[in-house]
Amino acid sequence: MASVQDIFVSAVINLISALVFLLAFAIARLQPINDRVYFPKWYLKGIRASPRSSGSFVNKFVNLDLRTYIRFLNWMPAALKMPEQELIGHAGLDSAVYIRIYLLGLKIFVPITLLSFAVLVPVNWTSGETLDHIEDLTFSNIDKLSISNIPSGSKRFWAHVVMAYVYTFWTLYILYKEYKKISTMRLDFLASEKRRPDQFTVLVRNVPPDPDESVSKHVEHFFRVNHSDHYLTQQVVYNANKLAKLVEKKKSNHNWLTYYQTKYERDPEKKQKIKTGFWGLCGKSVDAIDYYTTEIEKLTKEEAEEREKVKSEPNAIVSAAFVSFNSRWGAAVCAQTQQSRNSTIWLTEWAPEPRDVYWDNLSIPYIQLSVRRLLMAVALFFLTFFFMIPIGFVQAFASIDGIRKVLPFLKPLIDMDFVKSFVQGFLPGIVLKIFLIVLPMILMIMSKIEGFTSLSSLDRRSAAKYHLFVIVNVFFGSIITGAAFEQLDRFLHQSPTEIPKTIGVTLPMKATFFITFIMVDGWAGIAAEILRLVPLIMFHIKNTFLVKTEHDREEAMDPGSLNFSVSEPRLQLYFLLGLVYSVVTPILLPFIIIFFAFSYMVFRHQIINVYDQKYESGASFWPDVNRRILIGLVISHLLLIGLLSTKDASQSTPLLIVLTVLTIWFHKFCKGRFESVFVKFPLQDAVVKDTVERTTEPNFNLKEYLQDAYLHPVLKGVDFEVSKELDDEEKNSLVATKRTSRRSSKTVSNGTSEDQKTVSEIQLVF
Amino acid sequence: MASVQDIFVSAVINLISALVFLLAFAIARLQPINDRVYFPKWYLKGIRASPRSSGSFVNKFVNLDLRTYIRFLNWMPAALKMPEQELIGHAGLDSAVYIRIYLLGLKIFVPITLLSFAVLVPVNWTSGETLDHIEDLTFSNIDKLSISNIPSGSKRFWAHVVMAYVYTFWTLYILYKEYKKISTMRLDFLASEKRRPDQFTVLVRNVPPDPDESVSKHVEHFFRVNHSDHYLTQQVVYNANKLAKLVEKKKSNHNWLTYYQTKYERDPEKKQKIKTGFWGLCGKSVDAIDYYTTEIEKLTKEEAEEREKVKSEPNAIVSAAFVSFNSRWGAAVCAQTQQSRNSTIWLTEWAPEPRDVYWDNLSIPYIQLSVRRLLMAVALFFLTFFFMIPIGFVQAFASIDGIRKVLPFLKPLIDMDFVKSFVQGFLPGIVLKIFLIVLPMILMIMSKIEGFTSLSSLDRRSAAKYHLFVIVNVFFGSIITGAAFEQLDRFLHQSPTEIPKTIGVTLPMKATFFITFIMVDGWAGIAAEILRLVPLIMFHIKNTFLVKTEHDREEAMDPGSLNFSVSEPRLQLYFLLGLVYSVVTPILLPFIIIFFAFSYMVFRHQIINVYDQKYESGASFWPDVNRRILIGLVISHLLLIGLLSTKDASQSTPLLIVLTVLTIWFHKFCKGRFESVFVKFPLQDAVVKDTVERTTEPNFNLKEYLQDAYLHPVLKGVDFEVSKELDDEEKNSLVATKRTSRRSSKTVSNGTSEDQKTVSEIQLVF
Repeated sequence: MASVQDIFVSAVINLISALVFLLAFAIARLQPINDRVYFPKWYLKGIRASPRSSGSFVNKFVNLDLRTYIRFLNWMPAALKMPEQELIGHAGLDSAVYIRIYLLGLKIFVPITLLSFAVLVPVNWTSGETLDHIEDLTFSNIDKLSISNIPSGSKRFWAHVVMAYVYTFWTLYILYKEYKKISTMRLDFLASEKRRPDQFTVLVRNVPPDPDESVSKHVEHFFRVNHSDHYLTQQVVYNANKLAKLVEKKKSNHNWLTYYQTKYERDPEKKQKIKTGFWGLCGKSVDAIDYYTTEIEKLTKEEAEEREKVKSEPNAIVSAAFVSFNSRWGAAVCAQTQQSRNSTIWLTEWAPEPRDVYWDNLSIPYIQLSVRRLLMAVALFFLTFFFMIPIGFVQAFASIDGIRKVLPFLKPLIDMDFVKSFVQGFLPGIVLKIFLIVLPMILMIMSKIEGFTSLSSLDRRSAAKYHLFVIVNVFFGSIITGAAFEQLDRFLHQSPTEIPKTIGVTLPMKATFFITFIMVDGWAGIAAEILRLVPLIMFHIKNTFLVKTEHDREEAMDPGSLNFSVSEPRLQLYFLLGLVYSVVTPILLPFIIIFFAFSYMVFRHQIINVYDQKYESGASFWPDVNRRILIGLVISHLLLIGLLSTKDASQSTPLLIVLTVLTIWFHKFCKGRFESVFVKFPLQDAVVKDTVERTTEPNFNLKEYLQDAYLHPVLKGVDFEVSKELDDEEKNSLVATKRTSRRSSKTVSNGTSEDQKTVSEIQLVF
Repeated sequence: MASVQDIFVSAVINLISALVFLLAFAIARLQPINDRVYFPKWYLKGIRASPRSSGSFVNKFVNLDLRTYIRFLNWMPAALKMPEQELIGHAGLDSAVYIRIYLLGLKIFVPITLLSFAVLVPVNWTSGETLDHIEDLTFSNIDKLSISNIPSGSKRFWAHVVMAYVYTFWTLYILYKEYKKISTMRLDFLASEKRRPDQFTVLVRNVPPDPDESVSKHVEHFFRVNHSDHYLTQQVVYNANKLAKLVEKKKSNHNWLTYYQTKYERDPEKKQKIKTGFWGLCGKSVDAIDYYTTEIEKLTKEEAEEREKVKSEPNAIVSAAFVSFNSRWGAAVCAQTQQSRNSTIWLTEWAPEPRDVYWDNLSIPYIQLSVRRLLMAVALFFLTFFFMIPIGFVQAFASIDGIRKVLPFLKPLIDMDFVKSFVQGFLPGIVLKIFLIVLPMILMIMSKIEGFTSLSSLDRRSAAKYHLFVIVNVFFGSIITGAAFEQLDRFLHQSPTEIPKTIGVTLPMKATFFITFIMVDGWAGIAAEILRLVPLIMFHIKNTFLVKTEHDREEAMDPGSLNFSVSEPRLQLYFLLGLVYSVVTPILLPFIIIFFAFSYMVFRHQIINVYDQKYESGASFWPDVNRRILIGLVISHLLLIGLLSTKDASQSTPLLIVLTVLTIWFHKFCKGRFESVFVKFPLQDAVVKDTVERTTEPNFNLKEYLQDAYLHPVLKGVDFEVSKELDDEEKNSLVATKRTSRRSSKTVSNGTSEDQKTVSEIQLVF
């Protein structure tokens, strides 16, 4: 058990490392050469131009203006400056709502912290006799401030029960207000959006096969009959997955070609050779430039063939379609109703926006989908509870003896002292670390297998899986040491009343561990986020070897995006910790508040300057956020029940169970009250928008507008991809074209034409 | 523990009592005087006339044709004769599908029984060493056929695990087929129905208040705007609950008046006096006929005033309305979509048919509804687990000492030996029995408080509550003796793996108890059902004292109806017992098969000849039936896991858990595949029906047809009620009018015009 001094030392260390990150960031971001790493959002918007175009040569790479260094923290107020409405226009509702989660954390925990320090800390501190008498546990000063300091059966526990009530009601109140606010924001956002294809379009899946008609005709006839006054047009879905792979492969080969060409230009003497075998390790050696040139030629031909095949063969059309209607009302109606008496065919749902579509999953039949979900549910269970078994196996293999046995030729190497200690000391940890890094990808693959049709829903599903993993393995795993499957086994053999006790009793003792965790993972981790070390390095590598033109430079730029499926569940851990420890060990709360405040600033800066979201789902993740905070609240109640019943205060159990029931009811209430806003589109709003549009633009040709909106991006890019190959010389003009088109498409999709003024204001600050 | 002989004796006794009931029924139903008790359905259909109109005087009351007595069981083949299609037309889909549940029981359990007797019984029988050695438990011959006969750790348990797989897959297969069949039946039923108001109508609840407009105008404007092409008309809902009570009270007074008038006519000498005070026990004595005449006059005036008030005052209009559309498509769309961005107002749902509406609940605001559901959920929990506490309290009060203390003046009475032994021996049992009889009413009141808007949904909700009660208190309560809250307490202090063991181990020992239960509750209970003792007595009492005209006789007739909310959950107990004991003690299965076969015949007879359903919901209860059988299946798996792990065969646990997971997945699969058929109305079917109707009857005035369809029945009856009071002399003509109108309304609502032919065929049999 750490004392207050230990915590203080740890806090200082972590604060310093966070400050080092921030300083590094403050210096790095001022260098023009890094401009595209720290402000890619503005480049993508087409507002910021390359700084290389003006000033002296050195100035292009290094910032020599010392005055700018003095105000090295001024990105913070700058990040907070942009008003929320502008932020929504600038970065989209998803991002704006995402950072509100941090704000929500502050709203919940700041009053709770103040109350805790005003009420619970004195209550705990002043009943200080107990701990001195107990000798089998080592307690520290921290514990004097926690619930452990109160003797069993004391009347003082009523203070904790009352505070549990106050905190719960406060949390529910704030959650209700926030849910209401966000649902209004979503509806206003949807209402204020410019015309977008997905407003008029419905995704139809499981189109039944028809022996007499093509899918296209069948879909058209079905909707002409059943939505006679509203049907407008439809777009069948091509199975272009193979084509997409070919395009991807060609692009990669093209990158390698550029790399070798650059190398060749710098040192024309040296022949660039590569091996054609497995991963370039074996096989016969050939000239790299020749090899890639012929490869690209071959792929170009294959691609053209495949493209022809997709466009002509009827088998390439999958049993799904995007059906568009002549009004938002018609689309809203079709998306919300059942079409056929067989509820496994003609499934309609609101179409995701074109960027958001996950094309690979559009054609999975209903029964297969159902089986896939079952298998993935079972897989998730095993992954969550038994992941330590394969890891342990790999760790055993990665030990000295394991390596000796399987790879005997490495024996002389691993017998060296340095290698030996490395293998013994670090390898097991690294194996686990690698697994944890790979985990989100595994979860994403599982979600993809489950057959969701949009990137946003894939992210939400992965987040749900990750959240389960974090709760089981990080939260409970830290409180009760031992692997998850051992916990599971123990819980199966304990009574339901025993489990909260087992966990509750160790809860106060783990407070210092979690405080350290918050500082390392929260404070320093967020500071590392803003430095963007990996994108920084990657950009400079690409910039050196691959970039030949402005367009390449734009390609090399990796703005990244909010990784919702990972960061949201992690963030939920802090809510959970805050809620659980708010009554037990209030001293933990200030650390969480600092985490939320700091994260809020960092992510606000990032979404303004860096991230480029891949899609815009209109904050459709909020019901999940709300539910998970409520799960945290319920866990906190159950653990408090367990803790108090080990303290001879079990008469409080019924009172706390009331809280749990209330929380679950609140969840149901919120679901009924707000969730439909995130799932359905109210007809009233659709009518309003339709009417406004019909009066302002009576002659708009909607059919033409929607014609190619939902074409597979690979098929859409035809002209560009081909022309890029053909006229290699005219790159510059092409880039310009592309930039313009992207800018205009952005404006359409975000629908904010007043960005520019604000943006230039903001730019002045940096 | 009962031996085979005991069971045999019990079987004989119960068979005899069932036979006695059947014989009594066979004789009673042939007496013309009872005709209206045993064939009310035909009277209501207007096909069967009173038998009193022809033949000799005696023949009017007693059947003297001895030949008819010989074939006293021939109602059985007659009941089975009517084909299902005709049955649906005759009695409605609800009834036809309800008796299919019994058929489903046969389909599931007949093959299971055959397999069990072919495989498991020999396996159990031939390993007969164990039980002879155990002395602490008394085993019987029955146990030689059960799983108890197999020694711990025997390889023979594999037979049971394999059979558990076979039975589960067979059950799931049959359930899937049945669900599919029923959903087709429902869709065909809905498609073949004649025009009905509910097809075009949507119930709108939580109409927000508008300061400038009346509810009626507000609703009209809202739907004219948001469903511009489809809106037709609307009907606001009047709060006529007080008026309905007045009408009810007047009717009751009218009955008493008739009663005293009849008595007076029979014995004009004797003055009919009543007391006006509490329950006629105290107060001053007045002439009965005068009293009721003035009372009725007073009520008539009050009623007229209230009627005026309801029709004129704006406050009498509640915030709900029935909105009708010009096509089924329009109604289907409105029912399935969200109207307003605030999902707690303008809630639309498919309107129940006019008979099915529960008028009292139409105006509950959303938040109140949500709170009511929470309270009822908590109340249900306490009712289920703690109902024994108040019962015990009442029982203590109803003891000798309790009565002595509270009602000392009864002391001489209860000190009599006979009264004493009655109070001690029977009263506690009677208190419990009264509670169990009252329980369904309590559950129905709870469902009403929850705010459901149709009688069918109220029935379904009550059934769900009763099912929980039956599982906890009858099934588990019989296996583990002790009150439910003691069980709950025990389970809270046992580990999740321990609970199935505790129950599983006592399972085989309780087989004989459940066999007796099946014979008493199942066999004899169903035979009592067909005798209709209570309606028989009630009819004759009413017939003697109240009936003066044919119309009164029709009123006195109580056809009753399938009491879904009680009989379905009880019936589920037999599925549960069958599934649980199919592997453990197969000897129980034949008893269940007899129950299902016998019940099927009895209820088929009843729905053909007796019951008159209050509403027609189109078998919308089927998803519940399916789910509850699956719950039974899951319980059977868990108990088998527990039983086998006490028998040193816990290596089978993972195999059986796979079955459980599969069953739960099957539930989800069925839900996704079929449930929408019971909740939504597919647009394709709506379009087909609209199109057919538009071509066949292009000039039908739908608006006029729908005008008064959804008026509160009390307001609708205005003309009839008033005229009945005014022209007391013209009763006969009025009755005829009413009969005709009822007949025609029946024909409309059931939509079967070909009934008559079949009906006369059937009548020949009786």
